[in-house]
Amino acid sequence: MLSEFDLIKRYFARHSILDSRIALGIGDDCALLNPSPGMQLAISSDMLVSGRHFFPDADPYTLGHKCLAVNLSDLAAMGAAPLAFTLALSLPEANPDWLAEFSRGLLALSDEHGCHLIGGDTTKGPLNICITIFGELPPGTALRRDAAKVGDDIWVSGTLGDARLALAGYWNEVRLSTSEHQLAATRMHQPIPRIALGMALRGIAHAALDISDGLAGDLGHILEKSSVGATLFVDRLPAGPVLHKQSQDLRRQFTLNGGDDYELCFTAPASRRQDVQTAAAQASTTVTHIGHIVAGAGLRLLDEQGQTVFLQYKSFDHFAHP
Amino acid sequence: MLSEFDLIKRYFARHSILDSRIALGIGDDCALLNPSPGMQLAISSDMLVSGRHFFPDADPYTLGHKCLAVNLSDLAAMGAAPLAFTLALSLPEANPDWLAEFSRGLLALSDEHGCHLIGGDTTKGPLNICITIFGELPPGTALRRDAAKVGDDIWVSGTLGDARLALAGYWNEVRLSTSEHQLAATRMHQPIPRIALGMALRGIAHAALDISDGLAGDLGHILEKSSVGATLFVDRLPAGPVLHKQSQDLRRQFTLNGGDDYELCFTAPASRRQDVQTAAAQASTTVTHIGHIVAGAGLRLLDEQGQTVFLQYKSFDHFAHP
Repeated sequence: MLSEFDLIKRYFARHSILDSRIALGIGDDCALLNPSPGMQLAISSDMLVSGRHFFPDADPYTLGHKCLAVNLSDLAAMGAAPLAFTLALSLPEANPDWLAEFSRGLLALSDEHGCHLIGGDTTKGPLNICITIFGELPPGTALRRDAAKVGDDIWVSGTLGDARLALAGYWNEVRLSTSEHQLAATRMHQPIPRIALGMALRGIAHAALDISDGLAGDLGHILEKSSVGATLFVDRLPAGPVLHKQSQDLRRQFTLNGGDDYELCFTAPASRRQDVQTAAAQASTTVTHIGHIVAGAGLRLLDEQGQTVFLQYKSFDHFAHP
Repeated sequence: MLSEFDLIKRYFARHSILDSRIALGIGDDCALLNPSPGMQLAISSDMLVSGRHFFPDADPYTLGHKCLAVNLSDLAAMGAAPLAFTLALSLPEANPDWLAEFSRGLLALSDEHGCHLIGGDTTKGPLNICITIFGELPPGTALRRDAAKVGDDIWVSGTLGDARLALAGYWNEVRLSTSEHQLAATRMHQPIPRIALGMALRGIAHAALDISDGLAGDLGHILEKSSVGATLFVDRLPAGPVLHKQSQDLRRQFTLNGGDDYELCFTAPASRRQDVQTAAAQASTTVTHIGHIVAGAGLRLLDEQGQTVFLQYKSFDHFAHP
């Protein structure tokens, strides 16, 4: 059996980090960071629990990817540039094959974003993965949830609902072909954090967040924090390529309520529409204009004829569900 | 049942944080920190798992204290001043009584050290508590594990072994009176992070760490990282007030190998003995000179006659034990 120290060294420690902001990485009581002068630090923690956020038999490579991706997505939602992260890992056993694949998936994504693993903890226990991530951004440029203004356009990046459709496939709620299910499952297991888009939207977007619990519920946080309401055109919500072929009813439900999309939802002044499109093109990410911020409170859904659509929408909540 | 958002707001969110370094606290995708200009950031993560780091029926108030204390202790071991922390919490259920007491213990200690809760995550799952902590210190002043020099004195703060003795009491390895057991158990459940001492030792001490897995094993990390050896006088190790009354053999074993002490072990030049004592007095913390850093490798134990003592010593390791 590998010891805790062997484990960290063997699977997670890199020989050296070529980033002058990292003064000290793994191996001491603390890591030491030199934040860039004048920059603000953005910090987020996400804990992923086996059987709740991923299947107990989840592929360790994609699990390593996903654990870091959901944290990077929080940086993207603030407009922050990735800097570093810590990893705390509770494992039932130190399985070398699992660890090799998990660390490979995790470090491939961290390399892609220049986001360095600088410390953490390993312990024995039920499988639980907790990442705390650090990013940088110029003060005053953060895309906060409380910054939406009446008259703003509402936008969403990429496509929605395929992750939820994959889950429906696993649960046999929906019949999908093997290739369709695989395509949708990739969205569920390997979300793409919209880092480049978040950074490109600094100075253009007002409010932003990443969609982890479903568009309707998450947009609700912006509305509440900004003390505004919203109108959404439900049939403009960009369904994923697999969901796109399903019924209108399923498209509406899963684009509105499906979780695990990790797309950005953001608001921007109507006068900045061209700037939003330019930022999206720079970030090689599609964006779709899906509605408007209005005075008042709550979310109103409209069809293309401007008629109100009545759909249940509800944010995923770990403690409110059975 | 409380929702995740209610939960955070009700038990953990403070109305406002009066610290200009905290630009944004709980409630957005990320917290925002403005590190003090020119300061380095010290970062550490610790994960505590039910049944491994604490008893499943642990008192929630002292558990809240301990979870933050072990993280503060990592800052102390670097000489950093506490700034903020994030809390990720996996809970089997949202029990209001448990949460009220847990948050009370946690926030009492965070208030004491001006260390602000700025974000985190809650989820349903086996009880698991992961804290990531942030401190500040001037660049170049961190007390690193790789900085011990041949000729350095070795020091330890406070007393050792009472936490291990309390465990021995729970396990009926040792018979203790109720009042003795309570006194020792306080050391186990409510460790005191040596923040003031760590900060006072900047510029005086060379290497430092906090003792979580036992003095001998933890000192071994300093020896390995600094490529040096050490001589320890086993009968100078300061036994806690309860352990003090036990046999020499138990005193030696538990001061040397007992975990959960969260005292600082540090090295400093022999020429700075008076400065170490002055720093300790400033920090209202006792310190004891227990040995010397020597050339070579490994740890040699001596009695007061200078004779070698042969004792097994071994660091606690979550994966190496059954």
